[in-house]
Amino acid sequence: MDRQQLFDRIRQKGSYLCVGLDTDIRKIPSHLRNSDDPLFEFNRQIIDATHEYAVAYKPNVAFYESLGPAGWQSLERTLKYIPEGIFTIADAKRGDIGNTSSLYARAFFEQMQFDAVTVAPYMGADSVAPFLAFKNKWTILLACTSNPGSNDFQTIESRTTGRPLYEEVIVKACEWAGPDQLMFVAGATAPERIKRVRSLAPDHFLLVPGIGAQGGSLSAVSEAGMNKMCGLLVNATRSILYASDGKDFAEEAAKEARLLRDEMSSYLDRFL
Amino acid sequence: MDRQQLFDRIRQKGSYLCVGLDTDIRKIPSHLRNSDDPLFEFNRQIIDATHEYAVAYKPNVAFYESLGPAGWQSLERTLKYIPEGIFTIADAKRGDIGNTSSLYARAFFEQMQFDAVTVAPYMGADSVAPFLAFKNKWTILLACTSNPGSNDFQTIESRTTGRPLYEEVIVKACEWAGPDQLMFVAGATAPERIKRVRSLAPDHFLLVPGIGAQGGSLSAVSEAGMNKMCGLLVNATRSILYASDGKDFAEEAAKEARLLRDEMSSYLDRFL
Repeated sequence: MDRQQLFDRIRQKGSYLCVGLDTDIRKIPSHLRNSDDPLFEFNRQIIDATHEYAVAYKPNVAFYESLGPAGWQSLERTLKYIPEGIFTIADAKRGDIGNTSSLYARAFFEQMQFDAVTVAPYMGADSVAPFLAFKNKWTILLACTSNPGSNDFQTIESRTTGRPLYEEVIVKACEWAGPDQLMFVAGATAPERIKRVRSLAPDHFLLVPGIGAQGGSLSAVSEAGMNKMCGLLVNATRSILYASDGKDFAEEAAKEARLLRDEMSSYLDRFL
Repeated sequence: MDRQQLFDRIRQKGSYLCVGLDTDIRKIPSHLRNSDDPLFEFNRQIIDATHEYAVAYKPNVAFYESLGPAGWQSLERTLKYIPEGIFTIADAKRGDIGNTSSLYARAFFEQMQFDAVTVAPYMGADSVAPFLAFKNKWTILLACTSNPGSNDFQTIESRTTGRPLYEEVIVKACEWAGPDQLMFVAGATAPERIKRVRSLAPDHFLLVPGIGAQGGSLSAVSEAGMNKMCGLLVNATRSILYASDGKDFAEEAAKEARLLRDEMSSYLDRFL
């Protein structure tokens, strides 16, 4: 899916919602736990209930990997179940020396056919290049994350440029690829950083975690980050997935997703 | 395995060699490719041939993950095959928000029972803490890596302290855990950085990639990095695994490993 197609979907749906499929075997409703493939069964019902309101799904690979080979099968089944025309992101935060990153890129782009993978920047250009080598795919590079630890290293200011590390990542990565291949992760918990990211990368899409359970504000994020092609994919996970732990979990997930879509729709009208 | 036990093994074997099991299905000898589990079959013969000379094995998870569920099974079989008393490292370079890092930690420490996992520092304290929560296990944090991209971000100097990012990582991480739980990755391609790392973390073990195919010098690394409990695990991968692509691959791997052991043995005599 290219940038124009993604924007078209956002306009059609009035939504820039990404639903995180961080499906925790310990948190899914008890009546699902005895099914053959509980993670997939939960995801299937979540996808059925929310795909009208979402433009992207983002399974965090850890939740599947931690279950061994069976977990990888749940992930593959989930990916195949996501309807055509919805953007898919493997939240994997990989990054290794070049020949190794190539293998990760092939795993997520070829073997599993995700549209995008999240990548960690610490190891630099040659660790990211193998992902960017897939021209019709997307690399989503961590810039400023939404967790408390984002203040440990990402905000260290360079003696040479005065810029914090997350800005250095953006400036350098913009030399590696343009907005048709590269997105950045910018956490909702610090909207002032989203503003800085937007000024350094005016055309890139930003993947924004941290609203809902982590406390970020959708309104502040949208005001700080929206560009003329929306430029935002705002992720919600726990507030949707675990809206209820009963048999009505999918119905309640749909309500939460619809509420977010309605709010996003109003920001698209206001800021676009 | 605790630090004293690791040091005891190093003295017994006269070696601080870690063999990287980055087993590439496209590079293993052709006569193995038709076996039921080619990766495991290759690893089994490499382990048989080299375990006398190695104190650690380090499979890079990408090489298994890229083959899907079957690859994970090869990894699990390999781990179980490694003889008792040899240190095992999952080279995974993971790191995510706290609840997600917990899942990665459980996957590698509980489900698969590795002794150690490599972890990326970019997301800060709460992304590393779940690994450190396993008291009888090891977290190996990336500090300065051996690849060309290590110069993109790791060497950015802080405006406040004047220290490059990789030193900031070490200083901060030393507040999180001591040398009985934490090691650092320090690449052999820049021995002057190993010297700096050693001065900031005098007692920690360092995992040193980058000799052999990447061009680092075992002698320079050993002089710069050895402490009174050795404090080094020096990794070699391609020079051992692919010493020959014929039926004599294991025999040739053993020769390479023995040469490295002999050289290490002389440095242990000289620097310890």
